[in-house]
Amino acid sequence: MDGIGIVGAGIAGLHLGLLLRRHGVPVTIYSDRTPEQLAAGRMLNSVAHHHATVERERELGVDHWDAEEYYYFGHHHYLGGPQPLVFPGFFTAPSRAIDYRIYLPRLLEDFVARGGEFDVRPVQAADVTLLSERHELVVIASGRGTMSAMFPRRADKSPYDTPQRKLCVGLYEGVAPSEPRGVTMSVAPGHGELLEIPIFSAAGHVTALLFENVPGGDLEMLAELSYDEDPAGFEKVVLEKARQHHPATFERIDPARFRLTGPLDLLQGGVLPSVREDYARLPNGRYVVALGDAHVVVDPVIGQGANCASYSAWELGRTILEDPNFDERFCRKVADRRRNRVHATADWTNLMIRTPPPPHLLRMFGAMAQHREIADEFTENFSWPDRQWDILATPERVERYLARHGAV
Amino acid sequence: MDGIGIVGAGIAGLHLGLLLRRHGVPVTIYSDRTPEQLAAGRMLNSVAHHHATVERERELGVDHWDAEEYYYFGHHHYLGGPQPLVFPGFFTAPSRAIDYRIYLPRLLEDFVARGGEFDVRPVQAADVTLLSERHELVVIASGRGTMSAMFPRRADKSPYDTPQRKLCVGLYEGVAPSEPRGVTMSVAPGHGELLEIPIFSAAGHVTALLFENVPGGDLEMLAELSYDEDPAGFEKVVLEKARQHHPATFERIDPARFRLTGPLDLLQGGVLPSVREDYARLPNGRYVVALGDAHVVVDPVIGQGANCASYSAWELGRTILEDPNFDERFCRKVADRRRNRVHATADWTNLMIRTPPPPHLLRMFGAMAQHREIADEFTENFSWPDRQWDILATPERVERYLARHGAV
Repeated sequence: MDGIGIVGAGIAGLHLGLLLRRHGVPVTIYSDRTPEQLAAGRMLNSVAHHHATVERERELGVDHWDAEEYYYFGHHHYLGGPQPLVFPGFFTAPSRAIDYRIYLPRLLEDFVARGGEFDVRPVQAADVTLLSERHELVVIASGRGTMSAMFPRRADKSPYDTPQRKLCVGLYEGVAPSEPRGVTMSVAPGHGELLEIPIFSAAGHVTALLFENVPGGDLEMLAELSYDEDPAGFEKVVLEKARQHHPATFERIDPARFRLTGPLDLLQGGVLPSVREDYARLPNGRYVVALGDAHVVVDPVIGQGANCASYSAWELGRTILEDPNFDERFCRKVADRRRNRVHATADWTNLMIRTPPPPHLLRMFGAMAQHREIADEFTENFSWPDRQWDILATPERVERYLARHGAV
Repeated sequence: MDGIGIVGAGIAGLHLGLLLRRHGVPVTIYSDRTPEQLAAGRMLNSVAHHHATVERERELGVDHWDAEEYYYFGHHHYLGGPQPLVFPGFFTAPSRAIDYRIYLPRLLEDFVARGGEFDVRPVQAADVTLLSERHELVVIASGRGTMSAMFPRRADKSPYDTPQRKLCVGLYEGVAPSEPRGVTMSVAPGHGELLEIPIFSAAGHVTALLFENVPGGDLEMLAELSYDEDPAGFEKVVLEKARQHHPATFERIDPARFRLTGPLDLLQGGVLPSVREDYARLPNGRYVVALGDAHVVVDPVIGQGANCASYSAWELGRTILEDPNFDERFCRKVADRRRNRVHATADWTNLMIRTPPPPHLLRMFGAMAQHREIADEFTENFSWPDRQWDILATPERVERYLARHGAV
C-alpha cells in the first residue's frame, strides 16, 4: 500500500499533499491536466485567500507572495438603492488573490520538489476502487466529471435546486484600484452583485470583475454574452452594465483603457450550491473521503470555496497524521472536526444569495454602515465563517449581536 | 432572564457552574439535596479523577487535594486464568479518588463562595419548561428521577438492554496498599472484575472494593447480599469471594482487620449503559442540554463516568462562553465538540464489559503483559478515552497498533 492517493490538484489536494509531505507521508496526486496545461488554459476562478488561509500557506512553506503589492486590506461596500449605503470594513491581516493558473502550478512544483508523486491521468468514479487498493486512503478532491456523485448531496444543507446567480468573471485592465486597496462588493438590488477584486495574473496586477447576476435580472445576459464573437462589443456591454448597476466600480474605470486581458481570462456559467456527505464506503469495504468541490460547492459571491477547501484539507491532514486507521471511525472524526466551519461556510453563502435578501441580513448591512466595528468584524470573519454564522444564523442571533453592539 | 440554570449538583453541574462563575456568568444550581444531606448519606460511587480531570480542577481553582497522600500512580493488572497475567501500567501524571461525600460539598462551597446560586428543590422533567423561562439556558446534569427520559436513548450507541455487571462497592479497612500505590484491576474470567481503589473518605485513607460481577457468575450474589442484616457475615462472604476469585487483592487483606468502614459506605445495584441525545427542544421552543448522567451512563468498570462528565461540562462551558445564543445551532456545536471523546468513553467501556471478552481485547491484554510501553499507554489513556478508542475500536486497529509496537 502506497501512502495517500489524492484525486485532484486544486487547492484542497495540494494543501493536503503538502501538509502530509511535511510529515514524511507518501502522497500521490492524480490530475487530468499537466501544470503547463493548467497555466495555459482558461481562468479557473477569481478567488482570494484570506489570512487564515495565508497562515496555512506560511506553515506549509508556500507563502511565495508575501509582499505588499499582492495584498489587499478590506472590503468597500456599495449597497445600491434609493439611498445607497457606502462604507468600508477591514481585516486584521490582509488577503490576496493570485490567479490559480500561477498559484496551482507553483504549489505543484513545491509538492514534487518535496517528494510528492504527481500522476497525470484522468480518474473517474469507476477508477476509484482500483486506486483504493493501491493506497492506504484515497481522497477525492475534485468535483470534475463523475467524482462528486460518489458522495450523496445532502438535501438538509443544500436549499437550492438551481444556480442562484449567473456568473461572468473576467480579468480586466483599466480599473483603478480602490483606496485603500480592497475588494469592492457592490449590490444592485434585484439584479445581483459585482465583486471587484485586485488580483495578480500573467498580465500583472489587474482587476477581476465577478458579476453575480440574479436570474431574470438585467445583468443575467452577461453570463452568456460571447466575447470571442465580438470582443469590443462584449467590453462595451460590460462597461454599460457596470455604469448602470455598479457605479462604485464604474467611477474608477477608464473606458479608453478598459479591456479583458485575454480571451481565456473569462469564465461564464453558474454553480449549484451543494453540500455532500463527508465520505463513502466502496464495494470493497474501503472508505474514501470527499474534499473541496467533491464535498462542498458554494456560490463564489463571498469567495469562500477555496478557503474552505484549504481549511478542510488541514483538518483531514491532521486527522491522518494523528490516527492513520482509515475506517469509518476515521471518517466520522474528520466529519466532526470540520463540520462546524464547513457547514457555516455553505450556510452563510446560501444566505447571501437568497432572493430577496432576508430582513435580518439587511438589518446587519444597515448596522455595518453605521458602526465601523461591526463592518470590521463582518469583514474579518471572511477568515472565520463559523464565527460569521454565529452572528447571522437566525434573526434572533442578529438582533442579539446588534444589541450587544448598541446597534438596535 | 437569569443566566444559566443547572439541574444537578454532581461533578458535571459543579464543574460547569465553576467554569462559568470564573467568567462572571450568573449560574443557579438546583439539587434535591443539601450538602449536609449529601455528606451524611450513602456513598455515591468510588470514582477516581484522572489527570486530565485534575488539570481542569486546577484551572477551576478547586484542586484541594494536591498532596502525595491522595495520589496513586497506575494500575496493577491481574488477569486470572490457568496462567494469570500480572503486570503494571503507569500514568504520566497521577490520579486520585476522593469520596464524593467530601468532594461535592467542598466544590459546592467554592461555587457559592464565588457567587453561584444554590437552590435546594426537587426538579422533575415537568418543571423544566418553567425553569427554561427563568434562565437563558437550562442544563440537565442529573440522571435522577425522570430527568434522563427527556433525552431519547440512542440505540446505535447503547448496545445493551440490561446491566452487564451486578455491582457491589464498599469502603474497607484492612487492605494494605499496593506498591507503588495504584488501582488493582483483577479479572476473574466468567465471573467479572474487582477494582481495588485507594480512596480518601471520612474514615481517612481506605480502600474501595468495587466488585463488577457477571450475571450468572459466582459473585453475582454480592450485589444483593445484605450488610445490615449481618455485617460480620457480609464481610466474611466478601473476603471469601476475594480469596477465590481475586487473589492479587486478597493477599494484601488482613482478615483480622478487614471491615466495611460503615453501614452507609456500601452501594449495590447495577447500571444500564446508555448514550442519550445531546439536547431536547421543549414545547415552548427553548432548548435544554443534557450533561453527565442525563447524557451518558457508563458501567463503572473503568471509572470513566465522572471524568467524562467533567470533560463534557468543560466543552459545554466553553461553548457557552464563546457563543451564548442558546438555539439549535448552539446545541449542535456542543454535540460536535464533545462527540468524539464522549462516545469513545461509552464505546470503550461497553467493550470492556462484553461477555465473553472479544479476542482483540484479549490480544491487547496479552501484549500489555509483554510490553511495558503498551501497558503504560493503555493506562495513560484513562485520561484520553478517545485515544484509547483509536487503538481499540476494531480488531484491525488493534492489529495495526500492536504491529507498530512490534507486538504481533
